[in-house]
Amino acid sequence: MNELIAIKVIAQMHCDFSTKFGIPRQSGLVKALKGTVVFAPEYRNPDAVRGLEGFSHIWLIWQFSEAVREGWSPMVRPPRMGGNTRMGVFATRSPFRPNAIGLSSVKLDRVEFSPTLGPVLHVSGADLMDGTPILDIKPYLPGVDSHPEAVGGFADQFQGYALEVDFPEELLRCIPENRREALMGVLAQDPRPSYQHDPERQYGLSFAGFDVRFRVRDGVLSVCEVVPLT
Amino acid sequence: MNELIAIKVIAQMHCDFSTKFGIPRQSGLVKALKGTVVFAPEYRNPDAVRGLEGFSHIWLIWQFSEAVREGWSPMVRPPRMGGNTRMGVFATRSPFRPNAIGLSSVKLDRVEFSPTLGPVLHVSGADLMDGTPILDIKPYLPGVDSHPEAVGGFADQFQGYALEVDFPEELLRCIPENRREALMGVLAQDPRPSYQHDPERQYGLSFAGFDVRFRVRDGVLSVCEVVPLT
Repeated sequence: MNELIAIKVIAQMHCDFSTKFGIPRQSGLVKALKGTVVFAPEYRNPDAVRGLEGFSHIWLIWQFSEAVREGWSPMVRPPRMGGNTRMGVFATRSPFRPNAIGLSSVKLDRVEFSPTLGPVLHVSGADLMDGTPILDIKPYLPGVDSHPEAVGGFADQFQGYALEVDFPEELLRCIPENRREALMGVLAQDPRPSYQHDPERQYGLSFAGFDVRFRVRDGVLSVCEVVPLT
Repeated sequence: MNELIAIKVIAQMHCDFSTKFGIPRQSGLVKALKGTVVFAPEYRNPDAVRGLEGFSHIWLIWQFSEAVREGWSPMVRPPRMGGNTRMGVFATRSPFRPNAIGLSSVKLDRVEFSPTLGPVLHVSGADLMDGTPILDIKPYLPGVDSHPEAVGGFADQFQGYALEVDFPEELLRCIPENRREALMGVLAQDPRPSYQHDPERQYGLSFAGFDVRFRVRDGVLSVCEVVPLT
């Protein structure tokens, strides 16, 4: 049973994250994050999305393109558990799994029909990097996919985790207005690697063409510099 | 961007459907349906599922192995819409999509550790065929995956669709007791192809080693024969 299946890249994500650092660890955590799904030339057919505009949410099945590894390891260290506890890879949504397949439910804001790009899906709440290869798009069927009563195992205890964000007004003004809420949400999610707690350490987050530099101390994230990326 | 990604088969579904006919059209529609997920030899490692037993639901990402086609067509005919209305393939969960990838949330009843098969996942509510190749298993995170407020587009109107099932007591007794509820649920889901409405036509459903023969007239499905498959 060492079968291999060939999967096509049907679309690509476009968004404000040019690197992995700072991408929310699950979909829906930062609802203000906007992005677009642009089909590969072969799939730029308006018929293929007919009826999709009636759905409020969609599934993206995608490739963790920055996390493809040879081999696999049965256990991983979920960042929210402090980076020291190991869990079975199939009990997590870690990218380091036998098949680097990601699954995200995002809000479908609208379907645009672009003369050059074909149907473009405007989505919010994605946890994908700019350029992420997309393998499938499915409607979210609430009657089938939504199980509010489901028990979320060890992951349940980390719901609602957030940092307080101190973003000085004069620095926030450097960021385009329509990106500010999303950026604040991204910072509140605590982009640091889970095993780093040095309050003096400065981090840099690439977002929407800016390098946003910050430190974290006692549950407060303080932005100290905003520099345009060239 | 005509990239191909190689995906491994990590496990296989085992259940009572030896053919496609009669498999519920979505996961969760027949909660009494039981099945097991058995890992491929390379992935038979108890560590890989450590922590999974704390989740009530899991995602299966799998291959529509009976529906792999060359090429793709932008529109499909959803069976619940009578088989005549065409919708964009990405607005449906049809198997006939560019990548024959299926997505199902199932209940995780228990994790068994078998001396010969390694960890075996006992699940219910699956809409997969016996032998279906499984590509990934992820925990269902209710805080991230459940959107009870989502709008389900054209699919919403078909929720709750069911036939009345007339299964004579002496025929039902042929079926093992622990399969009866699931079989009744499968029949109520109306296994007929959507474009067939001939009340005289006899259908045969292969389930749990039996050929269950029935007719449908005026919203009532009547079982007329149960024959053991040899």
